[in-house]
Amino acid sequence: MKKVIIVGSVALDSISSPFGKVERTVGGSAIYASLSASLFSPAGIVGVVGKDFPKGFLSNLKRRKIDTSGIKFEKGKTFFWRGKYSWDLNTAHTLATQLNVFANFKGEIPSNFLKEEFLFLANIDPVLQLQVLKRMKKSGGAKFVAGDTMNFWIERKKEELKRVISFLDVFLLNEAELRQFTGQHNILKGIKKIFAMSKNLKGIVVKRGEYGTCFFMKNRMFFLPAFPLEDAVDPTGAGDSFAGTFMGWLASRKKINWQELKKAIVYGTIVASFTVAGFGTKGLLSLKKSEISKRYRKFAKMVHFEKTQI
Amino acid sequence: MKKVIIVGSVALDSISSPFGKVERTVGGSAIYASLSASLFSPAGIVGVVGKDFPKGFLSNLKRRKIDTSGIKFEKGKTFFWRGKYSWDLNTAHTLATQLNVFANFKGEIPSNFLKEEFLFLANIDPVLQLQVLKRMKKSGGAKFVAGDTMNFWIERKKEELKRVISFLDVFLLNEAELRQFTGQHNILKGIKKIFAMSKNLKGIVVKRGEYGTCFFMKNRMFFLPAFPLEDAVDPTGAGDSFAGTFMGWLASRKKINWQELKKAIVYGTIVASFTVAGFGTKGLLSLKKSEISKRYRKFAKMVHFEKTQI
Repeated sequence: MKKVIIVGSVALDSISSPFGKVERTVGGSAIYASLSASLFSPAGIVGVVGKDFPKGFLSNLKRRKIDTSGIKFEKGKTFFWRGKYSWDLNTAHTLATQLNVFANFKGEIPSNFLKEEFLFLANIDPVLQLQVLKRMKKSGGAKFVAGDTMNFWIERKKEELKRVISFLDVFLLNEAELRQFTGQHNILKGIKKIFAMSKNLKGIVVKRGEYGTCFFMKNRMFFLPAFPLEDAVDPTGAGDSFAGTFMGWLASRKKINWQELKKAIVYGTIVASFTVAGFGTKGLLSLKKSEISKRYRKFAKMVHFEKTQI
Repeated sequence: MKKVIIVGSVALDSISSPFGKVERTVGGSAIYASLSASLFSPAGIVGVVGKDFPKGFLSNLKRRKIDTSGIKFEKGKTFFWRGKYSWDLNTAHTLATQLNVFANFKGEIPSNFLKEEFLFLANIDPVLQLQVLKRMKKSGGAKFVAGDTMNFWIERKKEELKRVISFLDVFLLNEAELRQFTGQHNILKGIKKIFAMSKNLKGIVVKRGEYGTCFFMKNRMFFLPAFPLEDAVDPTGAGDSFAGTFMGWLASRKKINWQELKKAIVYGTIVASFTVAGFGTKGLLSLKKSEISKRYRKFAKMVHFEKTQI
């Protein structure tokens, strides 16, 4: 069984929305992505935490067969984030960020991870993304790499990010970041621009929050709405759940083709919808495969239509 | 062949966007909706124009077999609108509105229209919508009625609008209007609230601009993205094109069921995409059925995915 290696942040999050709040819950891109990937494939997580990290949480990862040997325990405090959402759950308002031990995160990959084929580079400094990527490629791993980013890096390290993208198979970003990165308001024009600058890139995922996701290859595209929820309460980690699921599904397949890529997008959307329905990782931790399958079938009914002719 | 009766504005529009501009082009909700409906069914238009209306344009309607006997010519000037779009084509910025002869529009229905089954009440005063609707129902017509509205009426005539909705089969509004009308940020909650207040209402269309459309019945829903365009230049009339197509398709069917309603949404989306690709009615006037069919097939490929199981 192929293992998905996930490199990113492990955090303690204090989150509030009009629907409730939670204090210092375990979060971070690598946590959401690995919990999600592990629904479909084994996963290995690479991150750093401090002395205040609740070690009991590791049992949640191990129960999902997530290899935690890449989590380093350092002196100091775990990366802390405090954020707030208003009724419009699309935008997070950051109230506090304390990088703590994450400031010195080097993304050291355990030797037993180095040859793994599937790598997800969650949103971290592109310089670090490139180091991890090169290290694994040199060891014969990282044959299929997906990478995420954020507005912070597009503003500050655009050239480094471009270099990372040139090594990626799939690049994930949200719609506002696409516009920021390409200077194009029109999505199709922006996508063309990214493909033109990154010859090896095969696919681009554009995340549009409650409006869903589009997936582009050079000559095809797939559009999917978000799964509609009456009980959305906390979108934290939705994008990382999406990406982890996307990679987990693909790692579980014998072949990666257009049909499997589309399914990866659908599963990513569905797992993300369960993430959003609970604070922190709550929705993810209690998620059963039967619930995913049920929602997959429901989703197909919601978006498919019959052929016809005029 | 069933005729779709369309009651709404006929206007002269001056429109500009980053992609060009046009001066005093024939527009208005009834024009866009009837040109679109007539791609699938005969249509009859009810509106009012002034002495400055370019009579030559009527030949465009007649060529499409649109019955123009409901267009009244009055002394005075035609309704004029000047609007501007920025790069974000989602929002129209109104620079000038001159109601002119439209201020006294009474929505008088020619007697040969009164018994027609399909009625589309475009965005006009709900008091007028109700009069038209009752008049036709009294004559044995208006068995299937769709109605549109706008923020202006939600603000000023909410109770009258509620009364109109109680007589509609399908209510169309955009996402911001749904929130404004129901006080609910969550779409699903808003939809429930409208259904709860309007016992006869069968369907609700929520228009989300470039993010597409959702269609709700009491126990089902259908989500569709917009057809992605690189060459979107002017969204004026997109919603009316959608609604006209929706009604035209349904009027052309023997039976209205869930599958046909979904197809009506798909065709509506597609015709609207051609409208947006030209200034004013340009995209609509040159549109061929073969182009619609081609885009329909392309669209299905873009949103469908295979069954699977985990």
